[in-house]
Amino acid sequence: MTRLARQVKALTFDVFGTVVDWRGSIIAEGRKLGRRKRIAADWAAFADAWRAGYRPAMDRVRRGELPWTNIDGLHRRILDELLERFRIDGLTEAEKADLNRAWHRLAPWKDSVAGLRRLKKKYVIATLSNGNVALLTNMAKHAGLPWDCVLSAELFGHYKPDSEVYLGAARLLGLEPGEVMMVAAHKDDLDAAARTGLRTALVRRPVEFGTKQEVTPEARFDFNARDFVDLARQLGC
Amino acid sequence: MTRLARQVKALTFDVFGTVVDWRGSIIAEGRKLGRRKRIAADWAAFADAWRAGYRPAMDRVRRGELPWTNIDGLHRRILDELLERFRIDGLTEAEKADLNRAWHRLAPWKDSVAGLRRLKKKYVIATLSNGNVALLTNMAKHAGLPWDCVLSAELFGHYKPDSEVYLGAARLLGLEPGEVMMVAAHKDDLDAAARTGLRTALVRRPVEFGTKQEVTPEARFDFNARDFVDLARQLGC
Repeated sequence: MTRLARQVKALTFDVFGTVVDWRGSIIAEGRKLGRRKRIAADWAAFADAWRAGYRPAMDRVRRGELPWTNIDGLHRRILDELLERFRIDGLTEAEKADLNRAWHRLAPWKDSVAGLRRLKKKYVIATLSNGNVALLTNMAKHAGLPWDCVLSAELFGHYKPDSEVYLGAARLLGLEPGEVMMVAAHKDDLDAAARTGLRTALVRRPVEFGTKQEVTPEARFDFNARDFVDLARQLGC
Repeated sequence: MTRLARQVKALTFDVFGTVVDWRGSIIAEGRKLGRRKRIAADWAAFADAWRAGYRPAMDRVRRGELPWTNIDGLHRRILDELLERFRIDGLTEAEKADLNRAWHRLAPWKDSVAGLRRLKKKYVIATLSNGNVALLTNMAKHAGLPWDCVLSAELFGHYKPDSEVYLGAARLLGLEPGEVMMVAAHKDDLDAAARTGLRTALVRRPVEFGTKQEVTPEARFDFNARDFVDLARQLGC
């Protein structure tokens, strides 16, 4: 095991795209709803549009244009727009609320649970997601994700990539920033973590956005891994 | 299953005394340290004094006489006083820090893990303790406590019995107060929870303070249980 792997005490994980396949899961939920309610829609385009609305909505909160709103609330604002744009009619309020909770039921990538179980033997493993606590807690229960601790942007009143989120996680874990390693499939998340002093591990998720995309390893990250099982192997777990 | 048991979606647990045997664990840690360092002390009195300092220290924070200080910090303030009072000399700073972290290594009551596993099948189970997040996370890893989510007074900047803690937990879990049930061995904790609209379950821990004490069931609580396995049975888990 490397010296760095020994210094690190906790791994914090981005969740949407890194741990779970949001796109495949939302498409599947849409299709299921479509069959039941006889709604024809391009559910892949719908999933992509829902996700595309997410960053701009968080950025409005980050700039102070919207008061603090958790991800359930932002997802619902975007959903209401999309139901109009995609001309999806006839959903009851209960059905809309349930569709919004599809984000609580996202399915893990096939290596996620096995990899986390291995990593958990040696490290504290925690979420560090923009998703809210209830969403992450319900998702973990649904998908069998064995977190030691659920940490969320919601606890800090700031969304990633604000530094408060990364530093807040280290503080709550009782650790120095250099004892925490951020694990994510997104380079901007890792770069923001690194600026606050956290260690970084890139995990490649080439099909997160549908068609396969090349994700190049970067020497500036402390680890570059194919998946969570590969990361566990590299960390000597 | 009763209607009430169906309404409740999440169980939040007091931890010190309710889930873990702080007194037996601290005595054992003291004795181990005493043998290694050849220190003779009344470790039972030491454990009781450490715990006795806890509520007054939190109350100083609650009254605003001390700025927000987490339990690791309060435990350490009390420990430094006790080392003088009990004339325990010769500990290095690293040994004092490790003794303070004894609270991260408390052992569960013998029914705790089995009961929590059963309760977890039907409910979200979360800590709701004055202990800080790192303490609760490390304790869960050490003792095998299968929490879905670690909630702490630290997240709200308030200690129990302040209402912010109980209401904050319901909010983070995305639930109405009446969908959350507080589980505790201490009646004052449950009474404060009930005042904010949470449901209540008393679990009797008659030997928490050493010699066996009668803990009487109270009709004002929604459930009265012998231990976590009995609570699981009453809730139909």
